[in-house]
Amino acid sequence: MKKIRAAVVGYGNIGRFTIEALEASADFEIAGVVRRAGAENCPAELQNYAVVKDLAELSDVDVAILATPTRSVEEHALRALELGINTVDSFDIHTSIPELRKTLDAAARKAGKVSIISAGWDPGSDSVVRTLLEAIAPEGITYTNFGPGRSMGHTVAVKAIEGVKEALSMTIPLGTGIHRRMVYVELLPGYELADVAARIKADPYFAYDETHVLQVESVKALNDVGHGVNMVRKGVSGKTHNQLFSFDMKINNPALTAQVLVACARAAMRQSPGCYTMIEIPVVDLLACSRDEAVAHLV
Amino acid sequence: MKKIRAAVVGYGNIGRFTIEALEASADFEIAGVVRRAGAENCPAELQNYAVVKDLAELSDVDVAILATPTRSVEEHALRALELGINTVDSFDIHTSIPELRKTLDAAARKAGKVSIISAGWDPGSDSVVRTLLEAIAPEGITYTNFGPGRSMGHTVAVKAIEGVKEALSMTIPLGTGIHRRMVYVELLPGYELADVAARIKADPYFAYDETHVLQVESVKALNDVGHGVNMVRKGVSGKTHNQLFSFDMKINNPALTAQVLVACARAAMRQSPGCYTMIEIPVVDLLACSRDEAVAHLV
Repeated sequence: MKKIRAAVVGYGNIGRFTIEALEASADFEIAGVVRRAGAENCPAELQNYAVVKDLAELSDVDVAILATPTRSVEEHALRALELGINTVDSFDIHTSIPELRKTLDAAARKAGKVSIISAGWDPGSDSVVRTLLEAIAPEGITYTNFGPGRSMGHTVAVKAIEGVKEALSMTIPLGTGIHRRMVYVELLPGYELADVAARIKADPYFAYDETHVLQVESVKALNDVGHGVNMVRKGVSGKTHNQLFSFDMKINNPALTAQVLVACARAAMRQSPGCYTMIEIPVVDLLACSRDEAVAHLV
Repeated sequence: MKKIRAAVVGYGNIGRFTIEALEASADFEIAGVVRRAGAENCPAELQNYAVVKDLAELSDVDVAILATPTRSVEEHALRALELGINTVDSFDIHTSIPELRKTLDAAARKAGKVSIISAGWDPGSDSVVRTLLEAIAPEGITYTNFGPGRSMGHTVAVKAIEGVKEALSMTIPLGTGIHRRMVYVELLPGYELADVAARIKADPYFAYDETHVLQVESVKALNDVGHGVNMVRKGVSGKTHNQLFSFDMKINNPALTAQVLVACARAAMRQSPGCYTMIEIPVVDLLACSRDEAVAHLV
């Protein structure tokens, strides 16, 4: 069987776990890694792979897995589609998803290729569960409670703020979808905590939540990429009330995100040209096995 | 907006809740009800609907929701497809699903129509969650634990056994996917409990589980259609172990089944000709709202 050739674009936390997930998937082959520094100071675990500065330098790429910061996803996705390569990303700014989907849908259709966006766990696999619960109990309220755990998106956002040397943003669930953000920072010399804290609290990632900014000597000493979700729905099926549902996860965050990206890279090979979120894809397409096998073993 | 015209075939427990779910769904119109007795002794809640003996007597039916016993699903589905009508059922014999899918796929393609099979909660919505979890943690074990609650499929199976006047089969979760079946029966005159119990235990529905058969004076006095599921997966994402997931429901069983049937009746209008299980359908197609709305609110 022909293997799917995947390129990993960006080599931070998610990029590393994506390489692991690809290595663990028998139906994939790693076409190479794209990073700003190219092969310079290349990490040891990449020594058997092509490591380049530009996606165009890799050959026969079926799908580009974008493990870049969320805010540069669009640029990298458009570039890959222009090259005739499917894309998958874990774009995580919920309010901007419809716009990104529209932009990439036009580009993907033009290229005759497929983009799957917001393929992480939330947005991503949680969105599939959230949609399913809405369908089977159409009236009611769903609460998605995150954590406790490090939010990668929020951590990246803090690191981009002036005066921050190193950062960690923890998400603490307060119930009914309300969260506290605990932000731990090391400051650059010459910056005051109060000023930096004000900038963090003004960032769209933090502006709507209770946020506490604490200065620490070492962010590294606090590091743990475990995370969790508790999604709860109480709703009505037909005219029957008090239907109760809950979905829980306790997971290594970048490992799960990377696995979702790889499953969606596979699904990208099976969709018609266009841009999709995970709720628009049959879950069976995420699996390595055939439809018949999945129906026999999982339905 | 043109409403979807649905017929309900069979008017037992599921049929009644299906009418309620259709009445609660603004995008549906009830074309009528098909029952063996036709309009004879018609229940009061159906007085405003066409009640007939044969599906062909109803006009402009888009989709037939089959609320019949599982073992007559195939016959009713083939009949509806011949009439050019999409079908949805909650066929629940897991091991026979691939064969039913194959038979109905051929018939549906021939008719240019859509069949969605095994659209209940297990098989059904649970299958979607089970498949999703397998995709995001590909190695590991999933345990699906049912109950405590009345199993409709098992109860119907017991009622079909010689000597049984009335029956109730309760499913008791013992953990790791192992279940006890507690079967409560009223016997017909002249039958012995030991003989009837032996026949029940030999039925394929019960042959693989610990089964206890108890004789009671009134099954009706024990009746409660609440049910539950606890699905647990511990698995590996990429090369990272100990990823923990669980999905729980505490629900009114026929109300949930009926709501899933109605959601899938809607989805049937949006698929290409053929036969599908729920894992083969994008979850967004189960919703009444548009894709754009769903992406904006649920992803």
